[in-house]
Amino acid sequence: MSKTIELAQHLEKLHTNNMYKSDFYWTWDKTDEELDAIFTVADALRDLRERNKSTRIFDSGLGISIFRDNSTRTRFSFASACNLLGLTVQDLDEKKSQIAHGETVRETANMVSFMADVIGIRDDMFIGEGHKYQKTFMDAVKEGYRDGILEQQPTLVNLQCDVDHPTQAMADMLHIIHQFGGVENLKGKKLAMTWAYSPSYGKPLSVPQGVIGLMTRFGMDVVLAHPEGYDVMPEVEEIARKNAQATGGSYRKVATMEEAFDGADIVYPKSWAPFAAMEERTKLYQAGDQKGIDELEKKLLAQNANFKNWSCTEEMMKRTKDGKALYLHCLPADITGLSCPEGEVDNSVFDRYLVPLYKEASFKPYIIAAMIMMSKVKDPVSALMAMDAGKARKAF
Amino acid sequence: MSKTIELAQHLEKLHTNNMYKSDFYWTWDKTDEELDAIFTVADALRDLRERNKSTRIFDSGLGISIFRDNSTRTRFSFASACNLLGLTVQDLDEKKSQIAHGETVRETANMVSFMADVIGIRDDMFIGEGHKYQKTFMDAVKEGYRDGILEQQPTLVNLQCDVDHPTQAMADMLHIIHQFGGVENLKGKKLAMTWAYSPSYGKPLSVPQGVIGLMTRFGMDVVLAHPEGYDVMPEVEEIARKNAQATGGSYRKVATMEEAFDGADIVYPKSWAPFAAMEERTKLYQAGDQKGIDELEKKLLAQNANFKNWSCTEEMMKRTKDGKALYLHCLPADITGLSCPEGEVDNSVFDRYLVPLYKEASFKPYIIAAMIMMSKVKDPVSALMAMDAGKARKAF
Amino acid sequence: MSKTIELAQHLEKLHTNNMYKSDFYWTWDKTDEELDAIFTVADALRDLRERNKSTRIFDSGLGISIFRDNSTRTRFSFASACNLLGLTVQDLDEKKSQIAHGETVRETANMVSFMADVIGIRDDMFIGEGHKYQKTFMDAVKEGYRDGILEQQPTLVNLQCDVDHPTQAMADMLHIIHQFGGVENLKGKKLAMTWAYSPSYGKPLSVPQGVIGLMTRFGMDVVLAHPEGYDVMPEVEEIARKNAQATGGSYRKVATMEEAFDGADIVYPKSWAPFAAMEERTKLYQAGDQKGIDELEKKLLAQNANFKNWSCTEEMMKRTKDGKALYLHCLPADITGLSCPEGEVDNSVFDRYLVPLYKEASFKPYIIAAMIMMSKVKDPVSALMAMDAGKARKAF
Repeated sequence: MSKTIELAQHLEKLHTNNMYKSDFYWTWDKTDEELDAIFTVADALRDLRERNKSTRIFDSGLGISIFRDNSTRTRFSFASACNLLGLTVQDLDEKKSQIAHGETVRETANMVSFMADVIGIRDDMFIGEGHKYQKTFMDAVKEGYRDGILEQQPTLVNLQCDVDHPTQAMADMLHIIHQFGGVENLKGKKLAMTWAYSPSYGKPLSVPQGVIGLMTRFGMDVVLAHPEGYDVMPEVEEIARKNAQATGGSYRKVATMEEAFDGADIVYPKSWAPFAAMEERTKLYQAGDQKGIDELEKKLLAQNANFKNWSCTEEMMKRTKDGKALYLHCLPADITGLSCPEGEVDNSVFDRYLVPLYKEASFKPYIIAAMIMMSKVKDPVSALMAMDAGKARKAF
Repeated sequence: MSKTIELAQHLEKLHTNNMYKSDFYWTWDKTDEELDAIFTVADALRDLRERNKSTRIFDSGLGISIFRDNSTRTRFSFASACNLLGLTVQDLDEKKSQIAHGETVRETANMVSFMADVIGIRDDMFIGEGHKYQKTFMDAVKEGYRDGILEQQPTLVNLQCDVDHPTQAMADMLHIIHQFGGVENLKGKKLAMTWAYSPSYGKPLSVPQGVIGLMTRFGMDVVLAHPEGYDVMPEVEEIARKNAQATGGSYRKVATMEEAFDGADIVYPKSWAPFAAMEERTKLYQAGDQKGIDELEKKLLAQNANFKNWSCTEEMMKRTKDGKALYLHCLPADITGLSCPEGEVDNSVFDRYLVPLYKEASFKPYIIAAMIMMSKVKDPVSALMAMDAGKARKAF
Repeated sequence: MSKTIELAQHLEKLHTNNMYKSDFYWTWDKTDEELDAIFTVADALRDLRERNKSTRIFDSGLGISIFRDNSTRTRFSFASACNLLGLTVQDLDEKKSQIAHGETVRETANMVSFMADVIGIRDDMFIGEGHKYQKTFMDAVKEGYRDGILEQQPTLVNLQCDVDHPTQAMADMLHIIHQFGGVENLKGKKLAMTWAYSPSYGKPLSVPQGVIGLMTRFGMDVVLAHPEGYDVMPEVEEIARKNAQATGGSYRKVATMEEAFDGADIVYPKSWAPFAAMEERTKLYQAGDQKGIDELEKKLLAQNANFKNWSCTEEMMKRTKDGKALYLHCLPADITGLSCPEGEVDNSVFDRYLVPLYKEASFKPYIIAAMIMMSKVKDPVSALMAMDAGKARKAF
């Protein structure tokens, strides 16, 4: 029996009816079984690809991508996922600094979705705006479908908003599951999500938020650490706390990177911007206050520089479980002595984890494809079984 | 019997032999039956899509798009149409302000058409240039095919030139046909194509020209209204006059928006630039005279501002048939109090027609696909019937 | 028996086992039989296309294109080739002036290759860098495949580096073969690869290098001519010399265009930059010395202007075999009196060769597709036979 058939049999036991025709905004909108379904389908699609099996579920159709912030790896992951399923990507190239208004979004949403089966949106620049944009967009296409403007109802894959980065956190998590040999081995494991120094500013909060919002659901001891003033959104922390209670794990904050790393099985040291500063920035952008934006940038870079000791050095790594914690990063990292004089991680540490880091990233196309498949296919179990028995992707 | 089969049976009665391997420049190049064929195939493709039937006629092949002016909705409509039929879009990104010369066009045309089945060109910026560019391009690929350079003969879909905007006018018309319950109900209906104030300048004349050149063919009373100096091309007016005579309808010009709106069943209030000014602009661009261009822009904006009362207000709408004329626009509109302080249409009017406006736009991908299909498929009746009996687009 | 079957039977006799899963960097990495295989498959794919046969070998998969220099015709050739075989192009849009470093290339290579079957790279701007970039990139994806990051091993098509331009030279060569009625008719023919004046500077050396590196393999008398100081890379000249010895042809340098053209059967007059100057430019770019770059440009343009008599005039053409040598160019050419006041070729000469020039270019998509097919298909003979017997590309 192939791995795919085993995975399809597991999928069959899960309650996934609500996923059909649904959007993927935040991991915490989804039940544990629904997330399990995504992981399962991602693994199955990967197994099928390795065995040169066609996984096309569409013979035509478009995946619309909207990147309101620069992106290479998420762009290619979305393109790969769409291609895997038979969709063609059509990119809407919006000016990224422009904060669109309600009516304009509604009109654009309909105008670009005529043949759209799936919409992927990245909009992480502005706290309080990213999720709102995605919601407005998707409400518009749902109305468009209801009103007979669109012949199919497109569904959303959130490619990063101001609150969550679900395709990243899910790819990170699937990587952890594989590294630890199964989700059942994660109970009690310590995961440290910590801030790290970077000579740039304004990196989105949605990565740490996505991580604590998801990884507190597997019985692990999740620790968040950051310098004073670098808080994440309190709503997401509240979710992390509830998740931990429900799974017998824990969620807590500590004041230093050292404390977070002590005995950790998994570490995720990464820079992000302070929540309050990001709120201020959104207002400055809305007011078109370029001078204010420049001053804020200067202030934030100076503030960052106070915390250069928050870095994933060799010394810091020695504090972790046997000195060998699994090191995670969403990439690209700011690497001390390679991409910058002082950064998030020592070159020697980063270099040692290169293969696992690339593997971590390699799950993203499959996670995205699984999200699309679960929202577009009514009976995914039969679909996987048919793919397993089906034709080759490469004909000769 | 499915709607598609009914439509295929209607198509069978039409004389469409000349459409195979032909280009679509202007609606007035085509016979009434040929336009009927486009509407029929567009409706059939839409019905097939609604029923999840594959409409791929190609298993590979390229649709080359050339947008010599910015475009979102036409770009996505072309992409949707190509995808619907199995073609992949490859975009040629030319500098838009550059007026290409004969030899260069000829060379480019061959170099980008190696696997091209269809070419979509938008070139509406320069009066006297847009159509010429399309013609030069298509003559070159025809020669290329004849000379054995290209293995297939690509055909043109005019995505807007300086003279006509056939995919827009045809989509508008199909929308009217559906709204009025069939082309047989249009006899004697009054359609008002009127200029409207906008705080921008230089909008193409091809929309009003496309409308009067097409909509005078269905026995309607078509009225054109604009302020003095905003004339459209006299050749197209001549076509409108002849069309009206041939169908028992009428074409006339009136001096005010009020007169045009009085008792109208359909209104299409939209800004455009004066023909003479656009001719002047073309010369300034050819001479590279940026100062002259800036001065012309200033002059035109000031001239526009004299006609702010040309606006589709609630008051104006009350003059139409039962105050409920069908409001049309090619989008995006300049909406008073929403996108600008004073514009083409009141926000409350525009908002009331939102769903029909989006539906109007939603016909464009199907119109384009129908144009492609009629030019690439020798026996479109059998093709539709085979699609109707064929496999699903979404396999699971 | 179809032409494709004949070609497949010829292919069967060639030793091509090493081509499967291999990269295409330089023509001189390949055996004569391997190059013959490329020409053979290119001709077969063209025959199949002419007969409306599907040549898809993939039902999904990506062709990643990376153009580190502007390109229209190579871009469209790669897009056409991918489409012909069933791959979708995903373009990585790197800032072209940026010289990427080892680690960054390694990371990018993995991040964009998740579903990549083939990688096409153009990087011809910097002597000593273009090939290095391609090599670093491909080493990284090979490691990525070995380490389980990628599910398939992508192969390279060099779309032009600083050393060779194999898709161009191979297309040129296939054109020559067809013009002369077969490779067996080339023995003793004189081919003149000569420098020609152009009012621009810094054109890549990889075209003349690609030509002398390939065309010396067919028993022709290949002559290179250029003004003093416009030498090409000595390593490639060494290859040309060895090739000529092995095939009973000759390779020599002459000092004037006149001497090169005298009695030539084929002429390829084209501008390029001096090797030493390009080395200097690479260093200036690496140092970010914009002033130095500007000065070098001025110096090179002045130097070029000393050699305006190196032009393919009507007079010059009269020196060739019966005054009717086959004129080649990779396009676009600098045409005297058309695209510039004084350039590489007289307008009347260029115009007389327009159809053959476009045909020359038309082989490139097929050459690229053949390179892809030979590296991705284990049994290309059976594949061609199956295509010949298979379904139509255009279903109706």
